Amino acid sequence: MRDFSADHRWLSLNTATIRKSRGADLPLTDILEACARKGIRAVSPWRDQVAAAGLANVSKLVRQHGLELSGYCRGGMFPAVDAAGVRAARDDNRRAVDEAKELNATCLVLVVGALPGALQGKATHKDIALARNQVQDGIAELLEYARQAKMPLAIEPLHPMYAADRACINTMEQALDVCDALDPGKSGALGVAVDVYHVWWDPKLQQQIERAGRERLLAFHVCDWLTPTTDLLNDRGMMGDGVIDIPRIRGWVEAQGFAGYSEVEIFSTGNWWQRDAEETLDTCIARHRSSV
Amino acid sequence: MRDFSADHRWLSLNTATIRKSRGADLPLTDILEACARKGIRAVSPWRDQVAAAGLANVSKLVRQHGLELSGYCRGGMFPAVDAAGVRAARDDNRRAVDEAKELNATCLVLVVGALPGALQGKATHKDIALARNQVQDGIAELLEYARQAKMPLAIEPLHPMYAADRACINTMEQALDVCDALDPGKSGALGVAVDVYHVWWDPKLQQQIERAGRERLLAFHVCDWLTPTTDLLNDRGMMGDGVIDIPRIRGWVEAQGFAGYSEVEIFSTGNWWQRDAEETLDTCIARHRSSV
Repeated sequence: MRDFSADHRWLSLNTATIRKSRGADLPLTDILEACARKGIRAVSPWRDQVAAAGLANVSKLVRQHGLELSGYCRGGMFPAVDAAGVRAARDDNRRAVDEAKELNATCLVLVVGALPGALQGKATHKDIALARNQVQDGIAELLEYARQAKMPLAIEPLHPMYAADRACINTMEQALDVCDALDPGKSGALGVAVDVYHVWWDPKLQQQIERAGRERLLAFHVCDWLTPTTDLLNDRGMMGDGVIDIPRIRGWVEAQGFAGYSEVEIFSTGNWWQRDAEETLDTCIARHRSSV
Repeated sequence: MRDFSADHRWLSLNTATIRKSRGADLPLTDILEACARKGIRAVSPWRDQVAAAGLANVSKLVRQHGLELSGYCRGGMFPAVDAAGVRAARDDNRRAVDEAKELNATCLVLVVGALPGALQGKATHKDIALARNQVQDGIAELLEYARQAKMPLAIEPLHPMYAADRACINTMEQALDVCDALDPGKSGALGVAVDVYHVWWDPKLQQQIERAGRERLLAFHVCDWLTPTTDLLNDRGMMGDGVIDIPRIRGWVEAQGFAGYSEVEIFSTGNWWQRDAEETLDTCIARHRSSV
């Protein structure tokens, strides 16, 4: 297991972590500049931030600053109510692959979607098994496109509290079952993003990380689970402020040969997004050394 | 599968559902009287409510009204920081068994506990594997006592969003692994409480309900998962208002031979606890017929 205590060379910043500074939106260009200034070597930007700043512009800045992309957020959202919706998701996901390629990302992270309409507050049906089948079909189709682009797809199992509206793949075991079905040869084209926030509770976590192995461990995300947690989406904690034994999980992941970045991804309306981005970044760096 | 559409003979009321009426505490004695008046044949009361009303008094009223107890809420909370804490939990759980016996409950429901201190906002450690071992040890010890009292223990797997502070048993598979370890003969002394709110998302739910079988399916709880859910604890929905396909899950449970009550358990600070208990009860009855 790598020693993170002396520097932050393996820290990546998911750009959502400082998408707001003192409550105001911080442009992606500023975020990239701040990372470069702090000696952060990798980022994982969101598509809406990239679109707002312009893909070509972001691509240029990433190269200028010498930044790597530990991932690109995000593709997915496969289930739809009709054929037109399925096609729209397919086309949008292909564009996400293209953008990830342009930015030379390590992988495209997939938040796979769930019950159509649920994220807008009104699910069109309650058949989660159907949604799961649609997700697998959608990944299967996208995988062909992504293979040609040589862009690995990382299925991110989301915490079960998001099963209705964001992702109906909710455990490592379930994600790896999809990987086994679609890429039995473990080619590296399909794998998982392990986010400790989503999977820390799972009694089968160590076993499934071992099952994943090096070929399928494409990304490692960190933050912390606060007690109490006051919001289902935007109350993630800074590493060290919650109950997740992050070093233990990182140890399991690295025991399989994972040697990539540890990506900090914190959504925090009430706390970190209210602070100055400078302070948040400094804290991420300090906690990366002490608590990851 | 039983037809619930014509009456509510298989409805049980978990008394938390109307523990508040128009925002004010409703005494258990009033709740029992209201249930009897509405033709509700079973309840599942909470220990604090019973303590406030007096055990002997509640026992008398339950008999007078001819009410059954589909369960008794609740034992558990096994993990502790030291031997004194373990002993205190043991003693308290034995009292819970005694009370359940006095009230002739079908089972004592176990919310098993998790990281000590987390529920108070400050976990004393982050070792969830240790907590899980302590839970299994605690259940093993309590089981001996409960067997003598002939009081079945129902492990309630709680949603993974409660893994830190309320229960570190979070899936049916995990609960049944404990049952297999402690009661391999499926004596009926140890089983599970299936609450759709906690387990609806689980891709292995049907498989694990089949694994449980009749001997281990001791209770069935219903409410609904709202989108969005605005509070991790107290924003449960009325059956039919959310995304859970309750009849499908009830079908799986009943296919194993479960023929007990469907217990309505809704914690709802912002909605149902603000309404008049009469309205909440009437809605429970209507939705039991239409959406369970």
